Amino acid sequence: MNDNASELELKARKAKEATATLAFLPATVKNRALLRVARMLVESKTEILDANREDYVEARSSGMNEAMLDRLMLTGERIDAIAADVLTVAALPDPVGRIFDNRTLPNGLQLAKRRVPLGVIAAIYESRPNVTIDISALCLKSGNACLLRGGKEARRSNRALASVMQRACAAEGVPDGAVQFIESTDRALVSELLGMRQYIDLVIPRGGADLIRLVAEQATMAVVTGGIGVCHAYVDKTAEVEMAVRIVENAKVQRPTVCNALDCVLVHRDIARRFLPRMAAALGRSKVEIRADAEAVDILKASGYAEVVSATDADWGKEYLSLVAAVRVVGDIGEAIEHIRRYGSGHSEAIVTEDYSASNRFVAEVDAACVYVNASTRFTDGSQFGLGAEIGISTQKFHARGPMALEEITSYKWVALGTGQVRE
Amino acid sequence: MNDNASELELKARKAKEATATLAFLPATVKNRALLRVARMLVESKTEILDANREDYVEARSSGMNEAMLDRLMLTGERIDAIAADVLTVAALPDPVGRIFDNRTLPNGLQLAKRRVPLGVIAAIYESRPNVTIDISALCLKSGNACLLRGGKEARRSNRALASVMQRACAAEGVPDGAVQFIESTDRALVSELLGMRQYIDLVIPRGGADLIRLVAEQATMAVVTGGIGVCHAYVDKTAEVEMAVRIVENAKVQRPTVCNALDCVLVHRDIARRFLPRMAAALGRSKVEIRADAEAVDILKASGYAEVVSATDADWGKEYLSLVAAVRVVGDIGEAIEHIRRYGSGHSEAIVTEDYSASNRFVAEVDAACVYVNASTRFTDGSQFGLGAEIGISTQKFHARGPMALEEITSYKWVALGTGQVRE
Repeated sequence: MNDNASELELKARKAKEATATLAFLPATVKNRALLRVARMLVESKTEILDANREDYVEARSSGMNEAMLDRLMLTGERIDAIAADVLTVAALPDPVGRIFDNRTLPNGLQLAKRRVPLGVIAAIYESRPNVTIDISALCLKSGNACLLRGGKEARRSNRALASVMQRACAAEGVPDGAVQFIESTDRALVSELLGMRQYIDLVIPRGGADLIRLVAEQATMAVVTGGIGVCHAYVDKTAEVEMAVRIVENAKVQRPTVCNALDCVLVHRDIARRFLPRMAAALGRSKVEIRADAEAVDILKASGYAEVVSATDADWGKEYLSLVAAVRVVGDIGEAIEHIRRYGSGHSEAIVTEDYSASNRFVAEVDAACVYVNASTRFTDGSQFGLGAEIGISTQKFHARGPMALEEITSYKWVALGTGQVRE
Repeated sequence: MNDNASELELKARKAKEATATLAFLPATVKNRALLRVARMLVESKTEILDANREDYVEARSSGMNEAMLDRLMLTGERIDAIAADVLTVAALPDPVGRIFDNRTLPNGLQLAKRRVPLGVIAAIYESRPNVTIDISALCLKSGNACLLRGGKEARRSNRALASVMQRACAAEGVPDGAVQFIESTDRALVSELLGMRQYIDLVIPRGGADLIRLVAEQATMAVVTGGIGVCHAYVDKTAEVEMAVRIVENAKVQRPTVCNALDCVLVHRDIARRFLPRMAAALGRSKVEIRADAEAVDILKASGYAEVVSATDADWGKEYLSLVAAVRVVGDIGEAIEHIRRYGSGHSEAIVTEDYSASNRFVAEVDAACVYVNASTRFTDGSQFGLGAEIGISTQKFHARGPMALEEITSYKWVALGTGQVRE
């Protein structure tokens, strides 16, 4: 075992050891630590921004693209926003200890589930340094220890942010080991980490499809995968055209770089001539590039919209994360559902319709974390859903699906209070 | 790819294809199929028992031990019991489609979770042929397809039982592919299966510790591990001695071969002299072998109980599955909790106490699926807990913990019903 591996092993073990105390740390202590984190983030701006500037300069000179550079960059305002998010987490109710599914068995045994932390949560993430604080704050609030392994490009920024977190925790009596930051960005460490079932209860990969696949295939512990959103809107023949245009425009344009942004519009043949020109006009105002199938191209060109591009096979199932939209004409709702089944990523899918049966069928048959009728896919978000925060958006079905907040990183134990009951 | 691997791939793909229809198969169809399974099991007794007899004869001549032979053996009565369990499953409410966590967002969007099947559940199990019916019945009821891979020793019995299941399903219009039985018992197939993330959503290993570890380490999809129960009862200094004896006796003796049976008694020093002789007398009546630490040995011998054996280190953390109990004297509740933390398997743990604070502390600090105060560990069971059935007992924290029944093999989707909402 080399030095990096022993650093990892040591930190993972320390995190595991911290769980025994963290699991029943009073809410007041956790909240005081979070309030101090928020305060110290603001007070430590210079230190954090200096570290971030070094990361940024190095990344730019190594040729990182603009979108990635933007994710990497911190500003005073962005640090204020991260601190505000920590305050939001502090204000949420403590999930730990909540009793649910109570029942009394016929023999008088009082049975209930009691919410408990999962244990140690490892996060493997890429260039966004805010993840360091987001995830460690949610883990602390839910009584989980965390093991943070950020991307190489953001290593100085992550180290500065983790240091704030750790100092705030230490000052408020959170057990040493609760927030572990892996210094080394050696890629071999990821494989080591994914083998540590004895220390790590859950691993959350936050990054691109390659990272997620690697983690899902190699992890020996539980994994939550997600974050890849190939989102569709199906405009049914009965749709209100104005509403459909508004929903498509919002889902595509309001924030195109995120996973719940719209990628592909499927439109029923019977409404395509009325809908597509209006849609193209709306998307055109925001300079959205439209890549359409042959039928949609014909309709758009016939209506005088010349900017349309012909879609290729690579456009179906593509997550653009930019101002591009694929468009396809379908013969009926079944064809739309089949397209989504084949090309969707199980994230967020919408139908626009005034037909009761069509909405029921879409909701029943589309297999995705979030299925919308007459609303924008952009609502798939922990804050929007009223969960108060978000550790990620799960596109798997196991354990939690869709936006994951505090409750989704906990488990429960069954507690049975008896008066001497034995089994007959 | 050899023929066995292509059989597996074909069946896994067929199971996946069946999920699209199974997911919204009406409860009436599923229930009619289950009623027919129960009827056909009873009608097909000769065929099933003939197959089982061949398995049994082969296993006995190959030197299988009595406990394993007993698990393998079917009788007319056992088949009746399996059929009765299927009727119980048929009578349970359908979990699919249930709406929960409803909320209306400030913008009027109506949001709720709707319960859906997981998809394809693979079960890898050992010598008990009843698992073939138990798991496939629970999967069918919950709208999941299943892929069954039983042990070599029970292959004829499993094939006969799976055939009954498949014929009953076909006769009632359950989609072809819902119940897939792997004929080959080639061990290499397990590794193949564990790599099939594209087809399999969850794998449940039912068997010994080696199988469970192999599956947990190699599976690329979600896993539920469990079934290993190293269970403790801590007799606090304030315990009512009569109650403590009754609970220990029940937990150890009532059915010693199962995972929720008691393995180790921890007794507070202050009550050991009053408790241990009474406990030994009760366990002695059922011929339980007691393996005690030095202090308990002295107390038992001084009280005239000579049969006690000295425990070795191998006795702590051992799941006996037989009429053996380890006994240890502890200085306080903290020592008991520490012993359980070190040696327990996270299954079922009990305290016997009249002390309010001690019960609270035990419940809070003992990290197990089921924690009992003044009751026998033998209650850890889906039927006992009122879940109606059981697909296994999870000792992991992720997704489900403790007895797993229908709800625990489902997921949910978020359904958002709007009136044109877009995000600001």
